[in-house]
Amino acid sequence: MTTPPPTSASTFAINERNRVRRLPARGNYDRDTIYPIVDESLICHVGFVQDDQPIVIPTIHARIGDTIYFHGAPASRLLKLAADGAKVCVTCTLLDGLVLARSAFHSSMNYRSAVLFGVGRLVTDYDEQWAVMKAITEHVAKGRWDEVRYATEKEAQSTKFVAVEIESASAKIRTGPPKDDEEDYALPIWAGVLPLALTPSAPIADPLLTSGIAVPASVSQYRR
Amino acid sequence: MTTPPPTSASTFAINERNRVRRLPARGNYDRDTIYPIVDESLICHVGFVQDDQPIVIPTIHARIGDTIYFHGAPASRLLKLAADGAKVCVTCTLLDGLVLARSAFHSSMNYRSAVLFGVGRLVTDYDEQWAVMKAITEHVAKGRWDEVRYATEKEAQSTKFVAVEIESASAKIRTGPPKDDEEDYALPIWAGVLPLALTPSAPIADPLLTSGIAVPASVSQYRR
Repeated sequence: MTTPPPTSASTFAINERNRVRRLPARGNYDRDTIYPIVDESLICHVGFVQDDQPIVIPTIHARIGDTIYFHGAPASRLLKLAADGAKVCVTCTLLDGLVLARSAFHSSMNYRSAVLFGVGRLVTDYDEQWAVMKAITEHVAKGRWDEVRYATEKEAQSTKFVAVEIESASAKIRTGPPKDDEEDYALPIWAGVLPLALTPSAPIADPLLTSGIAVPASVSQYRR
Repeated sequence: MTTPPPTSASTFAINERNRVRRLPARGNYDRDTIYPIVDESLICHVGFVQDDQPIVIPTIHARIGDTIYFHGAPASRLLKLAADGAKVCVTCTLLDGLVLARSAFHSSMNYRSAVLFGVGRLVTDYDEQWAVMKAITEHVAKGRWDEVRYATEKEAQSTKFVAVEIESASAKIRTGPPKDDEEDYALPIWAGVLPLALTPSAPIADPLLTSGIAVPASVSQYRR
């Protein structure tokens, strides 16, 4: 494992890169706030630059300590550039609800987002690759690692693994009811929050599933 | 309105910027495929570059024809740069389910994503600003525009509106059950899809809501 151990400082330094500019009261720089957002987000959106062009790609991730990992096919543009040490921005966003104010102007969204900065590093060590496969499988569905057929060495070799040590990060969070202008509270307009969550419905068995295999707890009791 | 009319070509040209490299069979360049993903996505992730650093920010958007709009406070770094004509990448992602294969290697996600490219333009025309306010309100909750107190001219003036004409775009979609290796189908491992959707729960009225105001249909029958 070449992953550095988690650092002891619990808060990221505020600088020009991670400072929350708009509504700074919603900003937060603590690992204890940022990392649960990263871990609850099923996917992230990774930004990188190619020939002056920003590109944003959704991908599955997993966090181990202060490191974010991705994996995928070697043909991926993101993985190629990140493996070469490109600067990336990893953003995780959880939508918690619509904030329906009496005015269009104060209507908003309840959300928790985390924005992380770092540079890519190709993961070549097989032990670290193994830890990433486990972390990503468990990130997507807790308990699934103990159920699946593990990757073969050949499969691992045909996969590109990339690590991003988190150098800087911030979170931004909005919760609670709408905030309307004082004079608008008298208007006969419904206001409140419509909660939203990424919710599972009934699992659909593979049509080719051998009969008699029960849905495991990792699926039947799925929650993030 | 300075928005250009929708172009007649229904398909974006494939070039180095929008070409789907990984699993090209999942790629699509048709407006009829791309725009419904943009419209169903409650938020998007916008990537831009500041001092060689990629930055990805989640924001509410709305589409009118071949143009994507954002709005927010003038202090927003994204809006400042986009208003100055910065290159942006707008990515919309819908998660449709976990694809739980028998092997870790073939486990995946069902999703629909759209990646759009263009440059920012500050919207100064009040008619266009008004159309954006309506489009964004309706994008978040269809029917809400007829219920809210409209923005005053002062509120519009304290908001920055940015347009991005979509120059290039692609979609990427995965659907259906897992695809396992032939020899893995005999393994005693459950496989299938766990459908996921961003789902509303019961609306929470603002604690300061005047009594006797019913929940409107835009909220009680909310769906995307």
